[in-house]
Amino acid sequence: MDLFGTTDEQRQVERSIVRWRAEAGQAESDVISVEEPLEVRIGGHAVAVIMRTPGDDFELSAGFLLSEGLIAEPAALGAISYCLHADPPNEKNVVEVALAAGHSFDPAQLQRNFYASSSCGVCGKASIDALTGCAVLPMGEVRVDAQVLCAWPDEMRRAQAVFEQTGSLHAAALFGGDGTLRAVREDVGRHNAVDKLIGSYALRGERVPADSALLVSGRTSFEIVQKALVAGICFVAAVSAPSSLAVDLAVASGMTLVGFLRGKGFNVYAGSERICGDLPIIGER
Amino acid sequence: MDLFGTTDEQRQVERSIVRWRAEAGQAESDVISVEEPLEVRIGGHAVAVIMRTPGDDFELSAGFLLSEGLIAEPAALGAISYCLHADPPNEKNVVEVALAAGHSFDPAQLQRNFYASSSCGVCGKASIDALTGCAVLPMGEVRVDAQVLCAWPDEMRRAQAVFEQTGSLHAAALFGGDGTLRAVREDVGRHNAVDKLIGSYALRGERVPADSALLVSGRTSFEIVQKALVAGICFVAAVSAPSSLAVDLAVASGMTLVGFLRGKGFNVYAGSERICGDLPIIGER
Repeated sequence: MDLFGTTDEQRQVERSIVRWRAEAGQAESDVISVEEPLEVRIGGHAVAVIMRTPGDDFELSAGFLLSEGLIAEPAALGAISYCLHADPPNEKNVVEVALAAGHSFDPAQLQRNFYASSSCGVCGKASIDALTGCAVLPMGEVRVDAQVLCAWPDEMRRAQAVFEQTGSLHAAALFGGDGTLRAVREDVGRHNAVDKLIGSYALRGERVPADSALLVSGRTSFEIVQKALVAGICFVAAVSAPSSLAVDLAVASGMTLVGFLRGKGFNVYAGSERICGDLPIIGER
Repeated sequence: MDLFGTTDEQRQVERSIVRWRAEAGQAESDVISVEEPLEVRIGGHAVAVIMRTPGDDFELSAGFLLSEGLIAEPAALGAISYCLHADPPNEKNVVEVALAAGHSFDPAQLQRNFYASSSCGVCGKASIDALTGCAVLPMGEVRVDAQVLCAWPDEMRRAQAVFEQTGSLHAAALFGGDGTLRAVREDVGRHNAVDKLIGSYALRGERVPADSALLVSGRTSFEIVQKALVAGICFVAAVSAPSSLAVDLAVASGMTLVGFLRGKGFNVYAGSERICGDLPIIGER
């Protein structure tokens, strides 16, 4: 048994960051988990795009088809390969699954013409190009003091505690350039909490104010940065780590992306020029 | 500004659980975050099903349509309402968005006939019925010693540490009834890590061994329990909290569901009969 799966080098990448701490700040490089879309095809028919960490892609494809009921048993699996001649060229992000003799797949199983997220694409670069090339809102502008920023996670948690007893809901909050909490929303899904924030303005016919910063609990995926970008939010901070594609999209779109915002410090993955204040910074990307 | 969103009572539910701790175990009730599917329709056309925590549903719908680019601006939004006459009846889980005069939506935007996850449904109960009514694998059987169980998170983390430097990848691991680690997989998405585990067996034409228990980092959603169920795994444990729909599906399907597996204790949300050993248990659901 392959206990640990493949140790695919593609799973981690390095990015230059600015690490802020109470005592000092300095430019470093950081190891970041890779996130890339994977398109799964059965007999040439695309059935899903999964945002995933590369590695064990054939396992992922086989397991996905089984666990989502698209094939009934392992014996239905024939050859599995990367579709390297896909157009446009992709980086091992399209997997073609052939079914074994005697097994068939009915595309009519894919009954509903459901929305395919705009995070779909045959590679991360294509996903980013599609977004940054799109007409999105003009990006807002805000500058945030480093010490003010450090206080936001506690402030968001206090706001959550008002009515949250489960200790298990994700949260997203909007803060103004003056540091004040504008709104907080909760959900089992971080991305839903962000949509609720954006929607709270949309329902009144408004856009998110240009001088807003977004804070999310947990991690930052491509999808979170994408949602912020489309809403014109220029500053995204998170309590945990970003994915590679989240960093790449933030860099490509000129957004500020902060991660590991905990205690008296944080890491800046993009756009450190929007952070000011007392915490000294030794280097800048 | 509605700083905190609605304080919808639907967001939390109580479930009876068994709380195991080193000193004692006892039956209690626990407050659990609610997870329910929300179908968003534009002009009667279903465009997405979102697994979400009820509350602020109109905000979520408006924000989702905007942030995913399905509408271009807040002004495109007309009336938003619950589709209470949906068939079958739902519990405020279908939102109908009308567009404002002069705005239109082209269903051709929903280009690809992508797979709609089997977690889709107009209500959680329908989702559960659809799954438990399906032909799934015969459920496996395993019994786990409480002290052995407590050691699994550290064991999974040690296995991760072999090649994981980012501190940000989710993990899923399979353990045997004898307590040994069978396999571990990582991904930015917990559900992908589970699919990789299931797929690692499928690629060899095998099913997950009947005496397997699944451990996931982070939280347990409906989707994780669904994937385990379809693979015939009878025992799911997680480091953090489960959602309401995860608990409900575990109960309905006779699965064991453990949450908050940390240090010397854990909570049992379903199927506590599969846990044995020294830690005393005062009550059982």
